[in-house]
Amino acid sequence: MSPDRLSGIFCPVLMPFHEDLRPNADSLIRQCQWLLSQNVGLVLFGTTGEANSLSVEEKIELLDCLVDAGISPDSIVPGTGCCALNDTVNLTRHAVGLGCAACLMLPPFFYKDVSDDGLFASYAEVVERVGDEKLQIYLYHIPPIAQVGLSIDLIERLVRAYPDTIVGIKDSSGDWQNTLAILQRGWDDFRAFAGSENFLLRVMQNGGAGCISATANINPAAIDRLFAAWQKPQAAEMQEQLDAVREIVQEYPIIPALKAVVASCSNDAAWKTVRPPLVTLSIERQGSLMNALDQLNFTMPGVGKSTSR
Amino acid sequence: MSPDRLSGIFCPVLMPFHEDLRPNADSLIRQCQWLLSQNVGLVLFGTTGEANSLSVEEKIELLDCLVDAGISPDSIVPGTGCCALNDTVNLTRHAVGLGCAACLMLPPFFYKDVSDDGLFASYAEVVERVGDEKLQIYLYHIPPIAQVGLSIDLIERLVRAYPDTIVGIKDSSGDWQNTLAILQRGWDDFRAFAGSENFLLRVMQNGGAGCISATANINPAAIDRLFAAWQKPQAAEMQEQLDAVREIVQEYPIIPALKAVVASCSNDAAWKTVRPPLVTLSIERQGSLMNALDQLNFTMPGVGKSTSR
Repeated sequence: MSPDRLSGIFCPVLMPFHEDLRPNADSLIRQCQWLLSQNVGLVLFGTTGEANSLSVEEKIELLDCLVDAGISPDSIVPGTGCCALNDTVNLTRHAVGLGCAACLMLPPFFYKDVSDDGLFASYAEVVERVGDEKLQIYLYHIPPIAQVGLSIDLIERLVRAYPDTIVGIKDSSGDWQNTLAILQRGWDDFRAFAGSENFLLRVMQNGGAGCISATANINPAAIDRLFAAWQKPQAAEMQEQLDAVREIVQEYPIIPALKAVVASCSNDAAWKTVRPPLVTLSIERQGSLMNALDQLNFTMPGVGKSTSR
Repeated sequence: MSPDRLSGIFCPVLMPFHEDLRPNADSLIRQCQWLLSQNVGLVLFGTTGEANSLSVEEKIELLDCLVDAGISPDSIVPGTGCCALNDTVNLTRHAVGLGCAACLMLPPFFYKDVSDDGLFASYAEVVERVGDEKLQIYLYHIPPIAQVGLSIDLIERLVRAYPDTIVGIKDSSGDWQNTLAILQRGWDDFRAFAGSENFLLRVMQNGGAGCISATANINPAAIDRLFAAWQKPQAAEMQEQLDAVREIVQEYPIIPALKAVVASCSNDAAWKTVRPPLVTLSIERQGSLMNALDQLNFTMPGVGKSTSR
């Protein structure tokens, strides 16, 4: 009786802040509506969304605001993995209660060099404590930032222990061989998402489910077009075009850079605000970033405008 | 009008848990009373105390329990640095309101490769938002675990911006040259604590304030004796004796190892419980650890017993 598993393109939504660093729910709602109009799903509270700079209370309030605003919870995949077990359980339980499609779950990331046994216990405690058959977890493997990764053996243990709950992964290792190894394990209907559209074509050619990529905040439609056309002759060229945008953005700290692009394209400078420890891109760097994108004729049609839903 | 700055030996108190992984406040109170009877101060919610496996609400409740139990807040230095700015502000504000001696503060530790500007802004926002002249912050530099460190330049910027608030540091880098560089800067009355008693004699000989060390959970009196006698002829030998205990414990994952020692010496097996992602030491490893300590005639007199205060 579990809902369908996920595939396609998901956007780890940037988090807009007021000047006093409170999350700006209205701006977030507008951005989510725009992203849905571009045919991508919503990963709220991912790395790109400055999730770990928000408290659990703020995340719960924002989820409620989005659903109250009419955004369907089955288009929302919140990131719910925190350092503290009970924070993860509370946030996950709230997301399941709202009817969110699934949860993306970091391992606890403060302690380093932890064992697979310890990480297995972390996920197992969450699954058991939430205790809801509607819970679907996508593991979040992002060793470059979390510095705590999920080994293939650990993933296998989790899938075997909770086959109806541990249903997929976002692999943000940036290591294609790791993603390929996951895909080749072929666990029953396990959904592997690349953490960047750089790998989208290869992921699809090897049985993957799609990608969850920061760049989908600015380039969602083009990424979704490759997802739809990956078996077509033009797919390789489409991948190259996506890579060209990504390559420019990756030359900058990616979260401030993406916020600068949204600010520029939506004509709303407030989008530039980040929470510490991140810092806003300098005016000079904003200019060089936008110039580079202009040379690709990059645009974000409709961003920043209210959509009628 | 700020309270006196700190010196001496502080213990980052281990966190006892019930079988269902709730913090055991009664057991924590007993342990804190015992530690105070050994003449060491209390750092609650440090790395050793599994702080980042607890929610902010749990930490606030535990602080209240300790103070309600008659433990003087001026003997308590809570760790209050979280990933999310408002979590850090809330916990810090609560600690200051209770009259805690000071706060030990991690930088936000999820995002990596962040700039000094971003880390400066993180601390500055906390200082400004708490906005209380009674706030005294000890910076917490522990790059091996947090993977986000505090450069000497950053420390200097913070001390110059907030000379009455940024009053010291716990250096858990394990890098004596870094500790020495901090000591040699000689900021006015800045208090540098080593993160391990391994460095205690050297820290004291170079103008430091003491140490805040995990091992103080099991060996507090001996560490405090060296602090009192560091200028005496027997200091070098005392340091060697401390190092011998530390060397044994460090062969094991230190938090489960220390908990196993307290469990054994207090005859209370519940002390062995850790929260995931940590795992309890195997029975075999517990045995080898206690055997090695026995060969040093190691004891913990009075631990686990209620003290009358």
